[in-house]
Amino acid sequence: MSSTLLTGIAELTTFATDGPDVLERAALVMEGSTVAWVGPEAEAPDADERVDLGGRAVIPGFVDSHSHLVFAGDRSAEFTARMAGEAYAAGGIRTTVAATRAATDEQLTAHVGRLVQEMRRQGTTTLEIKSGYGLTVRDEARSLAVAAQFTDETTFLGAHVVPEGDPAAYVELVTGPMLDAAAPYARWVDAFCETGAFDVDQARAVLEAGRAHGLRGRLHANQLGPGPGVRLAAELGLVAVDHCTYLDDADVDALRDSGTIATLLPGVEFSTRQPYPDARRLLDAGVRVAIASDCNPGSSFTSSLPFCVALAVREMGMTPTEAVRAATATGAAALDRDDVGVLEPGRRADLVVLDAPSHVHLAYRPGVPLVSSVWMGGRPLTPFS
Amino acid sequence: MSSTLLTGIAELTTFATDGPDVLERAALVMEGSTVAWVGPEAEAPDADERVDLGGRAVIPGFVDSHSHLVFAGDRSAEFTARMAGEAYAAGGIRTTVAATRAATDEQLTAHVGRLVQEMRRQGTTTLEIKSGYGLTVRDEARSLAVAAQFTDETTFLGAHVVPEGDPAAYVELVTGPMLDAAAPYARWVDAFCETGAFDVDQARAVLEAGRAHGLRGRLHANQLGPGPGVRLAAELGLVAVDHCTYLDDADVDALRDSGTIATLLPGVEFSTRQPYPDARRLLDAGVRVAIASDCNPGSSFTSSLPFCVALAVREMGMTPTEAVRAATATGAAALDRDDVGVLEPGRRADLVVLDAPSHVHLAYRPGVPLVSSVWMGGRPLTPFS
Repeated sequence: MSSTLLTGIAELTTFATDGPDVLERAALVMEGSTVAWVGPEAEAPDADERVDLGGRAVIPGFVDSHSHLVFAGDRSAEFTARMAGEAYAAGGIRTTVAATRAATDEQLTAHVGRLVQEMRRQGTTTLEIKSGYGLTVRDEARSLAVAAQFTDETTFLGAHVVPEGDPAAYVELVTGPMLDAAAPYARWVDAFCETGAFDVDQARAVLEAGRAHGLRGRLHANQLGPGPGVRLAAELGLVAVDHCTYLDDADVDALRDSGTIATLLPGVEFSTRQPYPDARRLLDAGVRVAIASDCNPGSSFTSSLPFCVALAVREMGMTPTEAVRAATATGAAALDRDDVGVLEPGRRADLVVLDAPSHVHLAYRPGVPLVSSVWMGGRPLTPFS
Repeated sequence: MSSTLLTGIAELTTFATDGPDVLERAALVMEGSTVAWVGPEAEAPDADERVDLGGRAVIPGFVDSHSHLVFAGDRSAEFTARMAGEAYAAGGIRTTVAATRAATDEQLTAHVGRLVQEMRRQGTTTLEIKSGYGLTVRDEARSLAVAAQFTDETTFLGAHVVPEGDPAAYVELVTGPMLDAAAPYARWVDAFCETGAFDVDQARAVLEAGRAHGLRGRLHANQLGPGPGVRLAAELGLVAVDHCTYLDDADVDALRDSGTIATLLPGVEFSTRQPYPDARRLLDAGVRVAIASDCNPGSSFTSSLPFCVALAVREMGMTPTEAVRAATATGAAALDRDDVGVLEPGRRADLVVLDAPSHVHLAYRPGVPLVSSVWMGGRPLTPFS
């Protein structure tokens, strides 16, 4: 198994379990696909190969724990109308559902492949992908089959919206034949618990049915207003609950006590002009916070975790280091992954080299494509410059 | 002179003087460094070479009419402190002045070159560069000599801040020996007209002295609070006045009546957490609006006009098309350039190919590096993907 020594690291952000988050003038050794050693450059051991990074910063590869990449169609006209102050088109998701159902498997696969490649170029090395634009037995199952070609972190989100007809009958479908068809391709089950989507009893039924099929639960909750979703997530001991824009003190206490991670999705608030969630309040209360892109064609068509990091600092009260941790180490925890998101011996050698001397530049230089190269499993993905 | 035909343009944004702003299913012919023809793909004439852009959108190259690229040093720690709510460090600019004075010409040139290359990769094909971190006769002149290696649009900004001592004596220096030394390398003269920097009489003196040396005036004004700077710019008939965050109705009327362009710099408000200027109000009043990066190490270290376009839509009430026009055609007008910023016969063939079907995606997909390729003077700059 060959080893590679990376030198010339001005700043190595490790988020290691023990020891400091950040090392200066550091080096890192990879053996095969794994990190074998991190430490001061002056103490670096020998290796088969040596790559000088020329004074750049290195961070763990981003872990994007929330995306909706399996879709077809474009909603840029809806976006333009919303930005001009027109009311949010309630039919938005349904537009995408119609286009997704009409697309071939090959079209869906090619589209997801392009978006995954776009994410990789921006430093995302682990990502979750949800279904939720099929909303029939056939279309949910094939959405997940497409997603599973790109990641192990696939999530069944048949309970995204009620496509038509009686909500109770649709929940029967989701928890019955749709789940049967989807479960072989999914690791997670999710529901959109919000006024106008699924109520707390329906969301609970979906998560419990999923669990009976071996799927672990996650939840969309408290995005558009206050509600019981976040407390349901805490009660069920879910690993993460996503959005968390509208929280009362009892919600925050429940998250702290349960250890459930609050995954914030600031791209949504940017692209819908809604108020941002308050990350500072959560962190100060002792809640763990992740950030993710929520990449989807309606409410947040960014695929950029660097952009989300910049927003988290500008809009949600996080420090640059907290925001990068939320998009790497805590993103990994939100997927219950202990192999990625951190750079220390034994972890996967997934890392991002920045054209900058510090991870702070991800917030200090918003919008600038600072990703110089990406390594996945110990191998350089692409030279971009 | 060889000609090249670009086909497969899903959407061609021209901002042509006559005719529609946007053509669908279009083509464009370049002859040498110039646009020779634009129109529907079905009517395209022949050319020596033919390049199929595969259904991508094309826009004019971005024109960044306001940047401060000649500097040394890093102020990311100041940025982090500001984001944590600590008061803006008044010594900020002076930190950069000290580092800039200490840098060699070669170091400054290499640093500007890196930033210009970074801008090109993001689609900026014309840019302005100011001095203003030297603030001595020698350091202002050499800053401009460095800038002039990269652009014709160089601006003498000795009146950026009073470095030390008596403001009146410093204005004497700026309008005397410093201007004599700087003028050979500059096209424009600029001053920071704001409480705490230069008052309206000092700003007027600087602009008039510059004009006597053949330099045209521009102005920083009304960034941090209301003031007389914008009305001075209108009175003097300047082509543009920059920042324009705090405007009263008389300011807006003066801009409309004089035709002076308001150049808004939303990267500053993003990175200082200040309120954004109201582009909608200006446009509705009939004022021409440009947007630029203000790329500088203190208040706005973005070099990304795509990011500024997204902010202009999210935060300043512009439509996507208005924002792209502000960063191209109106940016060119703010530099009094009639050869760039627009794609029509006779203009320079400076254009950006987007990995997207429409320029709307620059706002719809914030933070995503959508620039597929950049053509300058009829030649492809770099393939990026």
